[in-house]
Parts: sequence; structure tokens; C-alpha cells
Amino acid sequence: SEVKKIAVIAGDGIGPEVVGEALKVLKKTEEVFGYRFETEDGLFGGIAIDEKGTPLPQETLELCKNADAVLLGAVGGPKWDNNSKELRPETGLLGIRKALGLFSNIRPAVIFDCLKDASTLKPEVLEGTDLIVVRELTGGIYFGEKFRREGANGQEAVDTCVYDVTEVERIVRQAFEIARTRSKKLASVDKANVLETSRLWRETVNRIAPDYPDVELEHVLVDNCAMQLLRRPSSFDVIVTENMFGDILSDEAAMLTGSIGMLSSASLGEGAFGLYEPVHGSAPDIAGQGIANPIATILSVALMFRLTFGYHDAAEAIERAVKEVLDAGHRTGDIAVDKSKAIGTIAMGQLIVDAI
Amino acid sequence: SEVKKIAVIAGDGIGPEVVGEALKVLKKTEEVFGYRFETEDGLFGGIAIDEKGTPLPQETLELCKNADAVLLGAVGGPKWDNNSKELRPETGLLGIRKALGLFSNIRPAVIFDCLKDASTLKPEVLEGTDLIVVRELTGGIYFGEKFRREGANGQEAVDTCVYDVTEVERIVRQAFEIARTRSKKLASVDKANVLETSRLWRETVNRIAPDYPDVELEHVLVDNCAMQLLRRPSSFDVIVTENMFGDILSDEAAMLTGSIGMLSSASLGEGAFGLYEPVHGSAPDIAGQGIANPIATILSVALMFRLTFGYHDAAEAIERAVKEVLDAGHRTGDIAVDKSKAIGTIAMGQLIVDAI
Ligand SMILES: CC(C)[C@H](C(=O)O)[C@@H](O)C(=O)O
Ligand SMILES: CC(C)[C@H](C(=O)O)[C@@H](O)C(=O)O
Repeated sequence: SEVKKIAVIAGDGIGPEVVGEALKVLKKTEEVFGYRFETEDGLFGGIAIDEKGTPLPQETLELCKNADAVLLGAVGGPKWDNNSKELRPETGLLGIRKALGLFSNIRPAVIFDCLKDASTLKPEVLEGTDLIVVRELTGGIYFGEKFRREGANGQEAVDTCVYDVTEVERIVRQAFEIARTRSKKLASVDKANVLETSRLWRETVNRIAPDYPDVELEHVLVDNCAMQLLRRPSSFDVIVTENMFGDILSDEAAMLTGSIGMLSSASLGEGAFGLYEPVHGSAPDIAGQGIANPIATILSVALMFRLTFGYHDAAEAIERAVKEVLDAGHRTGDIAVDKSKAIGTIAMGQLIVDAI
Repeated sequence: SEVKKIAVIAGDGIGPEVVGEALKVLKKTEEVFGYRFETEDGLFGGIAIDEKGTPLPQETLELCKNADAVLLGAVGGPKWDNNSKELRPETGLLGIRKALGLFSNIRPAVIFDCLKDASTLKPEVLEGTDLIVVRELTGGIYFGEKFRREGANGQEAVDTCVYDVTEVERIVRQAFEIARTRSKKLASVDKANVLETSRLWRETVNRIAPDYPDVELEHVLVDNCAMQLLRRPSSFDVIVTENMFGDILSDEAAMLTGSIGMLSSASLGEGAFGLYEPVHGSAPDIAGQGIANPIATILSVALMFRLTFGYHDAAEAIERAVKEVLDAGHRTGDIAVDKSKAIGTIAMGQLIVDAI
């Protein structure tokens, strides 16, 4: 089959460790399924600041643009937290999203059977929870004009939240399409009782909705959604919302599953191209110790196979292998009940590779 | 003692029912403690739209301005949801906050022993949770300029988030002061890695912090806070944040206690004056049935006694009476395990009055 180019951005903290295992999984699927991948490494985030003086070097951006997909580990750490804006890893993250046109962030929040007890929620409340947060990723208050000025009461800071109807429409249509492939329920989250951008959002959703008569639509105010996610997580299927609300709600949704070390995410644009990464961060506190859980990154490869390459057989094989290894009782420290029996990053990666 | 003037705004839905019971409690504390109150009713919200053509009539505003405190039931309902902006209850709510200078919203999220099981969180996670969210209430994206315009890609909507250093300083100082009277821990929540207003917020917090060396300060990013509230609710003491984040996080915090029918809130300005209301909404679905839980509104009276009047004895008596009635097993439908044994709004109010 055709060779697929994957840009590999290991990043900071535990990034290189977890990406290392994901690459072994990639290799194994080549052998088993005959797919062919070409990977190339790029510098990004804190390490790029250290080595190139910028979180998103031009050559990394070019590498990504010429690839079919991007696999990202994690970026950031205390070392760069107090840098000026242009020299912070987050700035690179926002920059790469915008430059690659990744307007949609897709985060499945699912419960892993073997981790049911890891959640702080009662198991009977979580039962059956399987939702996806679709977050708008290149608009809103993240990218609007920001500045300081002198006001009547001293210094003022300003952020601007802007959405145009085209930006709203494309993300909402994508969410409707995703809902169609699932339980056909879409919750659109906004703050239409206060914000003008939310009113535009809601009008747009209502205008588009008739094109998806098979999908059941509800509008939920963001504050209410933060509550309902706790009260009735299993009643949600697809949640679509703007950038800032999506940042907050997708983290809340991820945490309530109790499976944050296991969750993967995709950032997509118009075509098949996508950037895939674990939901968890760079965990500087455990970096370099060989104990990080590589499963979220490995499952990000499975998500890439599904959404960008359409390699459903290999995606399924990876997901099945992960389940098998967990069912056999193997655990990294973050998900182990008995920490003394926990295995390391490499051991976990190898078990999954062997199970494929 | 001096006569205190209380403006009573029953509002919509279950508002009049729950406020009715709170007024009986007020009367009883007059008899028991010798305090004297003068109450006067004002129209506000949906009912004011119906009767006066505006959610916040000028005479209601005057009534509040001339009072020592305001007791509010709840406003809003589906009947007014599709009205134009000026004719929506929420507009009245934002208007009254601004007009009365209520820049601070204080929401205690506590676990009621008898309701431990009502939360969707595991009891061992909730154990010891007792936090207060201090939300900035008259600034930020709620009150910044909002408009539509034609852009290159069709219609655009714009919201502006503005904070000046004075607005941040007064709310943050208040939060530090509150933390001082409690466990001396303050979590300041922002999105300083993305927003300019958050960077001003964080700078201001750090500038003020040395004045409160006895208070332990942490900065938490808003997305992380949405997670940590779920993971370790009991580790928080006071959380201070801007308007929009506070709207979302205070609702999340309220819901995780499982006690939402029991939570009260205060909105304060510079002086002792305050507006007190239950955290729950107008619950139009059960309005007029005599089954609403009046406890949150009754506890709002206790909060008024504490924060505005300094009537700590009466506040304590109310809180003790509520506890006694609950400990004796009495429940309204929302908090009853055995719904067939649930009592109504008036019965619950009477039991609490009798217990004072
Ligand atoms: C690091 C930060 C800028 C980023 C965001 O807010 O988008 C992160 O929280 C995320 O969700 O990917
Ligand atoms: C009704 C709405 C405008 C209001 C807000 O967002 O402030 C409400 O959610 C609240 O928290 O009091």
C-alpha cells in the first residue's frame, strides 16, 4: 500500500517515552497488516525553545505540512512557564493549530472497564458513559485581539472573542456528522443568555439542524453542562462547543471517566489530515523515569488509523490488544491498584506490541 | 434593635413558594432574638416583564437601593426565553448586579451529612469538602462590548472581555480576607497561558499576595481546576476567579456536593449590603405544586444575617434548625430517598420555624 508520512513530535517531559512505545506499535502494524509508514521527527515545544529559540520552528511546521498526519507526545513544563509569551510552549501549540487549520478537536471520553473504580464518580453513574467532546480549536477568545491599555481605573487588559458564521458552521456540521455515526444525539453548548458569539452559535446550529433530522439536538448552557456532565454523564453522546468552553468541559469530561492516562484526541481540519495526541500532559514530575503510561499515545495511533487513514482493521487490532493486556491485569503505576506490581512504559508497550 | 429593611424579590417559578417560607423564618427570628425587619416586595424577572414590560423596573431598583439587603427567590422560565434581549429575565439579573455594584458572588459548596449519598461522587472523595467559590460578578466578558458585524466570511459576532486592575484587586482582596477566616488556602483560577485578562489577573494576585502571608496561594488554570474539583474537592478552601470561569466552576462545585437544593449564595459590593439567593433556579417544571425545597432560601437568610447584619446568633439558630429537621429524617421530594414520604414546601418551612 501507499506510504503514509507521519510527522513525529515527541515534545517535552514524558512525551519522548510514550511516543517511543507508540512508534513500536506503528512498526508492528506495518508487519502485521502490510501498511507502510515513513516517520520523521520534529522539534516542538520546550525542547524547540531550548534548541531553536522558538516553540514552533519553521522546519517543524513544514514537516507537518508535508505529512499525512502528526503524532504528538506532550509539550510544556515548569522550565518554560515564566518565559515571555513568544517563548512559551503553549504559544507553539496555538500556532501549530492555526497554521495547520486544525479547527476541530475531538476528544472521546470513555470508561475503560478495568478502570471503572479509578473514577471519583460512582460506578452506577458512569455506567455506559461514552461521549465525545468536539471543541472548536482555532477561533474565539484564544485567537482574538489581546492587549493592555490605560483606563480610568489603572491598567486594563482586553481579550476579544470573535466567531464568524463560517467557523461555527464547519465545526457544527462536523459534530452533526459524528453524531450520525454514533447514538445520534448532539448537545450544543453555549452561553446564549449572555454572549453575542453564543447567540450567533445557537442561530447557526438551529439553521443547520434541519439538514440532520435524524440527530436529536439539545442546547445546553455552559454552566448547566458543567453540572449535567456530573449528574448524567451517560446521557451525552456528542457535545459540540466553542474553544474556551471546550477547553474546560473536555477536561472535566476526561477527568470524570477516571481514565485520563488512557484518553486520546484528534485535531482535524477540512481534509483527512490530523494531529493526534494523548489528552494527558507532559507530566514533568515523572519524566525520564520510565514509568509513564503509553496507552493514551498508543490509542492516538489507533485514532489516526481510523480518522486519517481509514485503516480500521489495524485500529481495531490496537484497541483489542490494549484491552487484552489490561484484561490480563497489567498496569502502569498511574492505573495500578497495587503499585508494587506496576510495570514500566517499555514493558507496557512491549506487551501491547506482542498482543497485536 | 434597629429596624433592617429587606427588599424581597420572589421572582418566577418556585421563587414565591420558597421565599414565602424564608419570610416565616425571618419573622420567627424577630420573635426569638428581638431583631426587627421591614420587608417590601419588588417585581423582578419574568413577572416584571409581564406586568411592567421590563425585567428590572426602576421602582424595584430603588427599593433595593434603599434596603439594607435583598432576598431573591429565582428568576426566569421558558415563557421568556425567546424574548428579545431587553425583555429577558437574565438581562434584569445582569442589570441589578451592575446597578447595585455587586462585584462579588460568594457560593459556599458544602456537603450536608444527610445528603452525602445524593452526590454522584464517591462519599470518600467528598469527605470533608467545604469550599467557597468567590466569583467576580460585574466585569469580564459579561459586561464588555458585544456586537455583530459583516466580516470576510459572513456575519461575525464579537464579545469583549475587559478587566482593569482595580476590579481584579478588590475581588482578590475580598477572597484573601475570606480565606483568612477559614482554612487559609486560596486558589486563584485563570487561563494565564492564553488570555491577557488572565495575565493581568495573575500579576495582580501575585502583587497582593505578600499582604496575606498567612494565606497559602496556588494558581490553577481553569481547565485544570475543572478537573481538580472532581479529583480532590476537599483540598480546596477558597477559589477566586473571574466572571465567566466562576459561572462554570461554581455550578460544577455546587453539583458535586449533591446538595444543590440546599446551597445559598451572596452577592456583595463594597459595604455590608448584599443580595442573597438560593443557588438553584426557578424550576418552572415544579412551580406552583408546593413541593419545592425551601432550605436553600432559608439558608440564604442565615447568610444574610452573618454577612450583612452580623446577627451570628440568629444565623446559627437557623442553620441548627435546618440540621435538626434533616437529622430527624424530614425531606422534600428533591432530597428524599423514599419519595412517597416526602413533605411539601410549607411543611418543611414550618418544621424549621418550629425548630428555631
Ligand atoms: C496548553 C493550552 C494552551 C491548551 C489549550 O488551552 O488549548 C491545553 O489546555 C489544551 O487543552 O490543549
Ligand atoms: C442567568 C445567568 C445570566 C446567570 C449568570 O450566568 O451569571 C446565572 O447562570 C448565574 O450564575 O447567576
